[in-house]
Amino acid sequence: MKKADTYVTPNQEEAGKFLHGALMWRGSVTPRLLPGLLLASCYPLILALIDRYWTPLPYLNVTPFEYIGAVLGVVLVFRTNAGYDRWWEARKLWGGIVNASRNILLAALSYGPDNAVWRREITQWTIAFAFACKESLRQSQNFDELKDLLTSQQIQELQAAQHMPYFVAGKIAKLFDQAYRRHDINETVFKELERQRTYLIDCLGGCERILKTPMPLVYAIKARRFILIFLLLLPFSLIEKAGLNSVLIFLLVAYPLLSLDRIGFELQYPFSTNSLSHLPLHGICNTIKANGLALLESVAASRTDNEN
Amino acid sequence: MKKADTYVTPNQEEAGKFLHGALMWRGSVTPRLLPGLLLASCYPLILALIDRYWTPLPYLNVTPFEYIGAVLGVVLVFRTNAGYDRWWEARKLWGGIVNASRNILLAALSYGPDNAVWRREITQWTIAFAFACKESLRQSQNFDELKDLLTSQQIQELQAAQHMPYFVAGKIAKLFDQAYRRHDINETVFKELERQRTYLIDCLGGCERILKTPMPLVYAIKARRFILIFLLLLPFSLIEKAGLNSVLIFLLVAYPLLSLDRIGFELQYPFSTNSLSHLPLHGICNTIKANGLALLESVAASRTDNEN
Amino acid sequence: MKKADTYVTPNQEEAGKFLHGALMWRGSVTPRLLPGLLLASCYPLILALIDRYWTPLPYLNVTPFEYIGAVLGVVLVFRTNAGYDRWWEARKLWGGIVNASRNILLAALSYGPDNAVWRREITQWTIAFAFACKESLRQSQNFDELKDLLTSQQIQELQAAQHMPYFVAGKIAKLFDQAYRRHDINETVFKELERQRTYLIDCLGGCERILKTPMPLVYAIKARRFILIFLLLLPFSLIEKAGLNSVLIFLLVAYPLLSLDRIGFELQYPFSTNSLSHLPLHGICNTIKANGLALLESVAASRTDNEN
Amino acid sequence: MKKADTYVTPNQEEAGKFLHGALMWRGSVTPRLLPGLLLASCYPLILALIDRYWTPLPYLNVTPFEYIGAVLGVVLVFRTNAGYDRWWEARKLWGGIVNASRNILLAALSYGPDNAVWRREITQWTIAFAFACKESLRQSQNFDELKDLLTSQQIQELQAAQHMPYFVAGKIAKLFDQAYRRHDINETVFKELERQRTYLIDCLGGCERILKTPMPLVYAIKARRFILIFLLLLPFSLIEKAGLNSVLIFLLVAYPLLSLDRIGFELQYPFSTNSLSHLPLHGICNTIKANGLALLESVAASRTDNEN
Amino acid sequence: MKKADTYVTPNQEEAGKFLHGALMWRGSVTPRLLPGLLLASCYPLILALIDRYWTPLPYLNVTPFEYIGAVLGVVLVFRTNAGYDRWWEARKLWGGIVNASRNILLAALSYGPDNAVWRREITQWTIAFAFACKESLRQSQNFDELKDLLTSQQIQELQAAQHMPYFVAGKIAKLFDQAYRRHDINETVFKELERQRTYLIDCLGGCERILKTPMPLVYAIKARRFILIFLLLLPFSLIEKAGLNSVLIFLLVAYPLLSLDRIGFELQYPFSTNSLSHLPLHGICNTIKANGLALLESVAASRTDNEN
Repeated sequence: MKKADTYVTPNQEEAGKFLHGALMWRGSVTPRLLPGLLLASCYPLILALIDRYWTPLPYLNVTPFEYIGAVLGVVLVFRTNAGYDRWWEARKLWGGIVNASRNILLAALSYGPDNAVWRREITQWTIAFAFACKESLRQSQNFDELKDLLTSQQIQELQAAQHMPYFVAGKIAKLFDQAYRRHDINETVFKELERQRTYLIDCLGGCERILKTPMPLVYAIKARRFILIFLLLLPFSLIEKAGLNSVLIFLLVAYPLLSLDRIGFELQYPFSTNSLSHLPLHGICNTIKANGLALLESVAASRTDNEN
Repeated sequence: MKKADTYVTPNQEEAGKFLHGALMWRGSVTPRLLPGLLLASCYPLILALIDRYWTPLPYLNVTPFEYIGAVLGVVLVFRTNAGYDRWWEARKLWGGIVNASRNILLAALSYGPDNAVWRREITQWTIAFAFACKESLRQSQNFDELKDLLTSQQIQELQAAQHMPYFVAGKIAKLFDQAYRRHDINETVFKELERQRTYLIDCLGGCERILKTPMPLVYAIKARRFILIFLLLLPFSLIEKAGLNSVLIFLLVAYPLLSLDRIGFELQYPFSTNSLSHLPLHGICNTIKANGLALLESVAASRTDNEN
Repeated sequence: MKKADTYVTPNQEEAGKFLHGALMWRGSVTPRLLPGLLLASCYPLILALIDRYWTPLPYLNVTPFEYIGAVLGVVLVFRTNAGYDRWWEARKLWGGIVNASRNILLAALSYGPDNAVWRREITQWTIAFAFACKESLRQSQNFDELKDLLTSQQIQELQAAQHMPYFVAGKIAKLFDQAYRRHDINETVFKELERQRTYLIDCLGGCERILKTPMPLVYAIKARRFILIFLLLLPFSLIEKAGLNSVLIFLLVAYPLLSLDRIGFELQYPFSTNSLSHLPLHGICNTIKANGLALLESVAASRTDNEN
Repeated sequence: MKKADTYVTPNQEEAGKFLHGALMWRGSVTPRLLPGLLLASCYPLILALIDRYWTPLPYLNVTPFEYIGAVLGVVLVFRTNAGYDRWWEARKLWGGIVNASRNILLAALSYGPDNAVWRREITQWTIAFAFACKESLRQSQNFDELKDLLTSQQIQELQAAQHMPYFVAGKIAKLFDQAYRRHDINETVFKELERQRTYLIDCLGGCERILKTPMPLVYAIKARRFILIFLLLLPFSLIEKAGLNSVLIFLLVAYPLLSLDRIGFELQYPFSTNSLSHLPLHGICNTIKANGLALLESVAASRTDNEN
Repeated sequence: MKKADTYVTPNQEEAGKFLHGALMWRGSVTPRLLPGLLLASCYPLILALIDRYWTPLPYLNVTPFEYIGAVLGVVLVFRTNAGYDRWWEARKLWGGIVNASRNILLAALSYGPDNAVWRREITQWTIAFAFACKESLRQSQNFDELKDLLTSQQIQELQAAQHMPYFVAGKIAKLFDQAYRRHDINETVFKELERQRTYLIDCLGGCERILKTPMPLVYAIKARRFILIFLLLLPFSLIEKAGLNSVLIFLLVAYPLLSLDRIGFELQYPFSTNSLSHLPLHGICNTIKANGLALLESVAASRTDNEN
């Protein structure tokens, strides 16, 4: 969460071929787990060596594992599902931002004033809203993609705002108010535009909720503590039967458990570029920009046609 | 995903008879898995032969399998549910397109202007919206079904648009605007039409979200990697007990695991005609077309009655 | 799905007594499974006889069953939940039809025109909508319950319509339009009535979605194929230990598996009178009719009071 | 469901202490299960006695139990979740009634006519709606709590209505209509009041849906039949190993299974005072009444202030 | 629930490092469980001592545990999920309060009257609503954070109100009414403001629903009773095999079971500062306050600009 020293690609498409998917390295959590896993494997190794060359370890009946195992299953399923639900909800909220931006632009440009300056401004700021959300959710202020849309003074104002997306929403509200007061848009369109603008703020609020409210910490602690206890006890029930092989078995059990825990952790932060499979906010924002500018041009052309 | 060389029938109805369903070939994932399965079965065969004729293989205690097995279960349940939820959400969104198209046409033709040209145009473009969505989601531009509705020039314009459904939505918005400015529809109806048109764009946005955001790649990789590890180790715990029979057992275990993985993969792409059980978008679009044209005629008739 | 030769009672209330519920025959899937189960039990019987009197069968280690068993569990849970969700969603949609019909009638009769003819007509057609939905979803055209409300000519027109509920919705829209044009209802009430009428169409659209889109066929095939493989292999792991008893055990395992599969299949078609536990659409429609007519009378009485 | 001879307290708060909760008697299903459990325990007892003193019983291999056990698990999870979902949905719908009542009163008293009679009447009938819902859902007509609000004649009219909540909704609609026709409330407020009144009917409709549509009977039968088969066969796999102890083991297995079945049954009827953990509708209604009357007074006071 | 003698930090962020998370003490339920766990461990200890030094205890076959274990799993999964769902729903409702407060302020300050007093008052009371909700849900009346916004008389009035948030909502409604009657805001804005104010009350109603309706008591009792029976019987199946080790195994089984039960209990009360991982309402309210005051200032500045 602190430094973004390694660049992580956003969520990509799955390969159709089974083996290709199974052996993928980039985008998988394995590289992040590897050092820990190797370190952890020393634990059963040392125990196995003690058992073989020094003194036999007490043998732990397998019974308690079954019960802890079931509880572990419950906790991991829960964490997996909750993590994915948060991730997918975040994606839906960004889908809402895409839809609302499109609806605002389609309505504002189709039914709005003929004034070319107003049309350009509403397009600029509606596009800027998505970028402001992205940067705000990533605790960053990099607006290079907006340099062709906004003046550097506008970008500075935006960066200086206490809450950037809220600032942009205020700009949009002002433009609507202007057009409405000049009777350039009628009440129905104004209402609809307001509804969509409000929806933009609702979506952003949802994203902030996901960003600021991690899963209940009691669960997260519990999940990890159960995994830890489970792995600490595991060698005692393995060594008698499996000897040095128990290091391998330990790794084969630890790998999926720690992977699922890690995936649950990564998916909790769907906005951060440090997270694996983070949402492709960059691409989403640029789609909004491209669609918006294309519509601005096409509407401009068609308006000119109509007037001729 | 690349070439559509094999034609796949969309989602069909289930047969009532148990055996008929159990033995169905067409529409099942088995043909797609068969080559891989046969290839994979060489692996335990070779191991079993080595074990019997050359040197006995190390025997792997069954314990780690139980744990990996449980994690595998978690991951497969998750993938199955998430895949189905995406598929069903996509179907609901298309249900929304059907409903909104019907509502637009019923309102536009019942309360809209008497102008026969306008009525024909609004029917054309509302029907065209569904087709444009279908083609856009399938990354194709085949509008043969619209040839009796639109002129070839209109179809060319549509095909040339940067974003086809957005282009059609613009056309519909223009028609509404026209009728409203001429006071052919009152504000209430205009508002309702606008609400439905906005809803069309929301549904399309939802479909694009599903199309462009596959399941988190971390999960997909993990699911396949666990299956792979599981299957690679399986023979070592089978051969001692089962000998050459372990090839059969291997197949019986690999078949359902790979099937569920494949089904999860197929359901992720509910729009592509390459996917098994893809949504019957063709049929849905044609239903919208048939209903719309029938309503257009019946309203035309009833309007003529009223005027007489 | 083809012939309705056996009359099936709709979903009934559960008995409070445990044994009464456990031994219920009517409304259970058992009668539908019995012939198949008896036939299927020949399979382990023949194998057991071969094993005893002719030649011992190969004994199958229990291991693969556990894995296939887990996958079977995943698939059955999935099918059970998905089936119930569809059924309950269908019930909710019909709840929506009840609510919208009530809201339309309460608003139309409380705030609508004093015109007794109009009031009677709106009541007739609103009630008719529910019946038209029921018949349309059941692919039938039996409107005997409407004979006291509509003239036989109106019923014929209804039966001749390409899409019956859509036809009725058109009638309702016309009545609203009439009242609005004559200034008998104000804009607010017109808007609310329109919203509810639109909601009727949305609910119907949802029901049609459930009717026309069965669960993904890939799943249905897979669930049945896994059950089949499972049952085909089962005797090989039983006969050595259990001898002829394995026929009984086979039945005890096959009965719940096939029951759950059958229940999943039945719940997929919540509208068909052939399905067990189908929705009581008949009762729902008649409730709408009774409530609607009672309100019509009470409003008529209260209006007369007011005018006096 | 027939006689309410035992008074059941509604859903209470859980105790913080573990043992206190674990040993709670009141509000638990155990008293309802005890007679049946004791009776059922005769079954393994008789079998064990036969086995010991007369003739050894056939011993049933444990294998089929595992499969039936898994299916039982699926069915019980399903029933548990579905029961809770219905219960919680019912609670949400009543939460909706609380919210809508509050919103109606706040809007009607803040923005409505100054007429004190009208204000009193709208408060009376809005409060009466919740009580009418409660009594209607409990198939009762006891309006003692309303005696200080309504005249005995009004209560009689209410009791005589075909559908009590619908009758009250009609009264409320009439009051809104009155105020609107006299221009005492403007269109915006009228619209909002109508929206909330419609929502009241939607919530009631949802409650009636839950009341009238029990879980699919096929499931309920199946769940109980599987439990019965399971328990009937259980002693045959226990007696050889456990002898007379198997009566205890039988009870320890039967108790949770029958408890979960019973809980599923009880939660299906969240409105009935005969059900354990039924919703505290009495308390909810009285909260609506207290809040409503307090607001009526405070608004009356503040209006007097303003006028002075 | 009674005394808040120990200060509990609200839900915090999860640590990225696995071990850090696994060994966290603060924010975990373990400190609350420790005394009980130590006490409970006397039970197997005494039994083991009796078994060793006095008389061998009867040995309990492991079979019944498997079944009770499965039911326990069902009940724990259910409790875990239901607890988290309530917690997350509560968080969503507070997200709704944040969004609605922002929307009210943005609309009221952008489109509302120029009157600086009105603008200040609407900001004060909108911010006060969130604080009133927080205090009301925590059954407290501490409004120290509002001292810079409201006069001490206003705070006293607020504390004296029968239902504090309802009182504030009445204040807000009055301000809207004032502005609307003076034609300072047009109908569209008034409608939108009303919609958002109504939504505030809906969110509060949802929170009160969660606060006042704990999970069905039948479940809570059952979950704890099953855990109790399970733990009481556990030593009888352990002691023969494990001797004094069974105390350790007992603890390892009891710890996760009691933890999950406790977590389910804690998450049921997401508002109480006594609960672990309670919602950070304090922080949420202060965010609303900071954003609101910042907007008030920036709008004031921009309005002054415009007028100049």
